[in-house]
Amino acid sequence: MSFPDIRSSILLTDLYQLTMLQGYMEQGMEETAVFEFFSRKMPPQRGFYMAAGLEQLVEFLEQARFTPEELEWVEKSGYFSKSFVKYLERWRFTGDLHAMPEGTIFFANEPIARITAPLPEAQLVETRLINLLQYQTLAASKAARCVLAASGKPLIDFGLRRAHGAEAGLLAARASYLAGFAGSATVLAELLFGVPVFGTMAHSFIQAHTVESEAFEHFAEAQPENVILLIDTYDTEEGAKKIVALAPRLKDKGIAIKGVRLDSGDLVDHAFKVRKILDEGGLSDVQITASGNLDEYAIQAMVADQAPIDFLAVGTKMTASADVPYLDCAYKLQEYAGRACRKKSEGKATWPGRKQVYRHYDSQGHIDHDVLTTADDSQDGELIIEKILECGKRISSPIPLPQSREHAAAQLQRLPEKLRLLREGTTVDVQVSQALRDLAQAVDAQR
Amino acid sequence: MSFPDIRSSILLTDLYQLTMLQGYMEQGMEETAVFEFFSRKMPPQRGFYMAAGLEQLVEFLEQARFTPEELEWVEKSGYFSKSFVKYLERWRFTGDLHAMPEGTIFFANEPIARITAPLPEAQLVETRLINLLQYQTLAASKAARCVLAASGKPLIDFGLRRAHGAEAGLLAARASYLAGFAGSATVLAELLFGVPVFGTMAHSFIQAHTVESEAFEHFAEAQPENVILLIDTYDTEEGAKKIVALAPRLKDKGIAIKGVRLDSGDLVDHAFKVRKILDEGGLSDVQITASGNLDEYAIQAMVADQAPIDFLAVGTKMTASADVPYLDCAYKLQEYAGRACRKKSEGKATWPGRKQVYRHYDSQGHIDHDVLTTADDSQDGELIIEKILECGKRISSPIPLPQSREHAAAQLQRLPEKLRLLREGTTVDVQVSQALRDLAQAVDAQR
Repeated sequence: MSFPDIRSSILLTDLYQLTMLQGYMEQGMEETAVFEFFSRKMPPQRGFYMAAGLEQLVEFLEQARFTPEELEWVEKSGYFSKSFVKYLERWRFTGDLHAMPEGTIFFANEPIARITAPLPEAQLVETRLINLLQYQTLAASKAARCVLAASGKPLIDFGLRRAHGAEAGLLAARASYLAGFAGSATVLAELLFGVPVFGTMAHSFIQAHTVESEAFEHFAEAQPENVILLIDTYDTEEGAKKIVALAPRLKDKGIAIKGVRLDSGDLVDHAFKVRKILDEGGLSDVQITASGNLDEYAIQAMVADQAPIDFLAVGTKMTASADVPYLDCAYKLQEYAGRACRKKSEGKATWPGRKQVYRHYDSQGHIDHDVLTTADDSQDGELIIEKILECGKRISSPIPLPQSREHAAAQLQRLPEKLRLLREGTTVDVQVSQALRDLAQAVDAQR
Repeated sequence: MSFPDIRSSILLTDLYQLTMLQGYMEQGMEETAVFEFFSRKMPPQRGFYMAAGLEQLVEFLEQARFTPEELEWVEKSGYFSKSFVKYLERWRFTGDLHAMPEGTIFFANEPIARITAPLPEAQLVETRLINLLQYQTLAASKAARCVLAASGKPLIDFGLRRAHGAEAGLLAARASYLAGFAGSATVLAELLFGVPVFGTMAHSFIQAHTVESEAFEHFAEAQPENVILLIDTYDTEEGAKKIVALAPRLKDKGIAIKGVRLDSGDLVDHAFKVRKILDEGGLSDVQITASGNLDEYAIQAMVADQAPIDFLAVGTKMTASADVPYLDCAYKLQEYAGRACRKKSEGKATWPGRKQVYRHYDSQGHIDHDVLTTADDSQDGELIIEKILECGKRISSPIPLPQSREHAAAQLQRLPEKLRLLREGTTVDVQVSQALRDLAQAVDAQR
């Protein structure tokens, strides 16, 4: 049996989706269901989230179907009836998708995606929908914090190696670029998503040579257009002095050193010392890249110290969203067959029905507050949730990633000062409209 | 252009691997390099790690090569010479791999994989090697802690939706099964890895019905062999009473209720109350599954309270390894062209040369201490690192996952009591042999 592409396989799902589907089929429960995806709570370390992953979700919904191999598995598993397998053969996603465009800032309880489809379609897409939206949103949100902290210094994603698998590395490269990173070290992210790709050198290149400055020279000759040399393998400042000594020899060969990279120790302290050595050696145009355990807090400190660092490479802590490695999120049934509903499990109660978010700005153009209301309750303010798919088809062409990136940058400009400064425990007020409160009361009264 | 499979693409790598390779090619640096993958430090929340991911690494090494599309990208990128593209066309992994078998327990500074290959081969595989080993090891280690905490209660992986992408979800299903979980909810993990698959039902199934007990009945009829009903959508104990009321009617149809699931609130408290309701209703053979925010600490508390819970479903916190979402790990050049070497960057110094680990047990058969030494320093104790690939080929057939799972279970039995109890800040002593200390001194003296 040939293995399906893990990214598009409809069996990248929980078994219970299939068992529930068989139940729906047998009961003829195929009326319209409305599910919404949202984050229940913001942890204190996140005052805002940035929506991401919509493009991958749309591709998934458009292509989702059972291949003959996958149907064979369903049949052979012994859990399901023959008629159910026949039914799955015809299964397609024919519903609507409403969503916040990628790069949009959002807060607790605001749906970033809404599926409106016959129940068995809306149900089956749950697992992958959450999987795609939660991770890219997580990575984009962490990356956006780094972008805010960096105050204009360019950032590069170095996180693939410590990402949770192949797809996480690729999606983090995409999400961080969306959030404002300059690019990524991950080559495949350029092929798949057009993310600009950057690279320097590793310690092993230095170590494989017996003499450090020989390693520098060999690397420069091999990559004359992109000479960024890693100088901390043995002693950072000694490394910088070797750069100064090497520069004239390279210049004679027509090669200019573009930059050096620091990857260990007190990066701020080393940056000041290395900058001085380079400047005194006549290399004031050689730029300094810093890497190693960086996150928004380390970057804030570097910027506050005015460290002479030109590029920041952020890896593990962004890719793994290390301080908040998962989103407290859910995809919940909000309406079925025209009847609004909600889950009331302890600590997990949700607002019922189809919802819309209206955003209000203060006089400086910063977000003041949001209003969460029912989709049919027209309000003042900026409407945030748009229709993306109708009857399973896009209603307009996909938004190119650079355009979503511009939207994300504009959204970050709209954050109130306290959120731009990443102050812990602050967020934006999401007001629940009277219309939505009334609906919740009506739903509870019905039961 | 057709997109490569993200899991096997050789371009799932950092750009600098390719730029360094061009440097190696131009300098004719193709002598044998030895790299080792290890974790530098154990955080206080991890007294041990469990090695995992070797099987996926072997598949990657065996199949790694540049496809015509990938070569086209390299050529078009503008970073590389024509002769380099020609060179890449012939690139294959022809080296040796030594590793700890999957499921083996290890500690700080102990290599779990060693690559011995011409430098450009050993270099290029770095990024994906780290990516594969770090994540599965992370997930297996977290899962192993849950297994220890559960004291024999079966565990099921529910984590796909909040995993970091598709591959993370699948590899977590595999790694947790390796570590001793009974199986996973992820369907595709059965197809890909033969992990047993389990499922119950979601709140949406309940909500889509107007009457909760009707939902229970419909689900039972659709899945008569696997009736596990989720009873917390509105009120857990009321849900349990509806189960008691429903059971006789289902029995008449020849359907037995296998279990109920609790997913919110104080799970221990609900479990006691639900158990009592079920027992008094004559349903003492109906089992209780608990899910919702579980990790090893919550499980320890449940077991300490003797909560009447039969199955534990663990999701997000295992899949994301939430308290330790990345491994402090590295893949470092330890020898080149017969010359041992080491990196000395501040706080990141490593032990040089090819290494072996010898394990020593106490009189009860528990791990007492390990000795880290040079690969040619034969010692007493159990030798942990084995040869897996020679000249790019497996020297014996792949170990089936169930067999690795047995090895993992035996390894957990070998942990000293303090580690089995998950006591924070405790680990096993890794002694550095005199031979390795001498080598490090000799390497430092050379520079």
